[in-house]
Amino acid sequence: MPSFSRIMDSARRFKGSFVPDQHSAAPQRHLVVVTCMDARLDLFRLLGLEIGDSHIVRNAGGRVTEDVLRSLVLSSNVLGTSEVVVIHHTGCGLFGRDNDELRDEIASITGADCSTIDFHPFDDVTESVRQDVAAIEACPLLPNVISVWGAIYDVATCELIPVD
Amino acid sequence: MPSFSRIMDSARRFKGSFVPDQHSAAPQRHLVVVTCMDARLDLFRLLGLEIGDSHIVRNAGGRVTEDVLRSLVLSSNVLGTSEVVVIHHTGCGLFGRDNDELRDEIASITGADCSTIDFHPFDDVTESVRQDVAAIEACPLLPNVISVWGAIYDVATCELIPVD
Repeated sequence: MPSFSRIMDSARRFKGSFVPDQHSAAPQRHLVVVTCMDARLDLFRLLGLEIGDSHIVRNAGGRVTEDVLRSLVLSSNVLGTSEVVVIHHTGCGLFGRDNDELRDEIASITGADCSTIDFHPFDDVTESVRQDVAAIEACPLLPNVISVWGAIYDVATCELIPVD
Repeated sequence: MPSFSRIMDSARRFKGSFVPDQHSAAPQRHLVVVTCMDARLDLFRLLGLEIGDSHIVRNAGGRVTEDVLRSLVLSSNVLGTSEVVVIHHTGCGLFGRDNDELRDEIASITGADCSTIDFHPFDDVTESVRQDVAAIEACPLLPNVISVWGAIYDVATCELIPVD
């Protein structure tokens, strides 16, 4: 466990420094953010979130997959969120790739079959945000989501750029 | 867009205060964290992460679904991570629920069919962490993951508790 001790030390310091409020599981700002797993995205600092404010859903690319819709359906209908923000970013590992190329690369590393996996690569980050906003707007299981909007985070300039 | 202005104001302050390092898409600590979308989890502060350190994958429950495996396969094979930490938490919206009950509740709210969705509820948070650690260890597409471990975050005490 290379990081175990370091992470547990940090968690003990966090526990010692933090007085928990009585937050419930329902986000106070009725907000849910969908974004990439990328290591350069600290959503709390970037978006000005406090503990208790917002659900955060993250996967490779910040793509709206079936599992993201499962999370959004629970977030909205069971835990009362009504606004979704989709954030993709520059320099994403899925940008400019395609499925065949990724499948070949991963099969050659692992020796295992990944020929049926859609890795959800994309060639245009504005278009990928628009597609994923549209997928949320089109989901019949999200009638109480009243606002969906998207943005691109530029990892070089640290700028958040809204997508029309 | 109820939060749009507030989020964009925060993002402008972040941009103004932050000098970006030249981080690549590959996490510096070769780490990836899988956890819940819950609003009470600020992973950077809890785990002592800096920007650039770790991939973070989040969904409802922090469950290891096919989409989480897709993200981990890319994280490990394309972006060089080798350690995975799975963190579930007390007070999760999926704890103590079952699929039939969630499907009925959501169908009654939305009027739409969700009878085929597995929401991945659980009754025992220690067992759910163990199951999801085992699912990662069993994945043939992750031969370069050398360490997988799990923990429970207690939202009432802010304590991180390792799971054996």
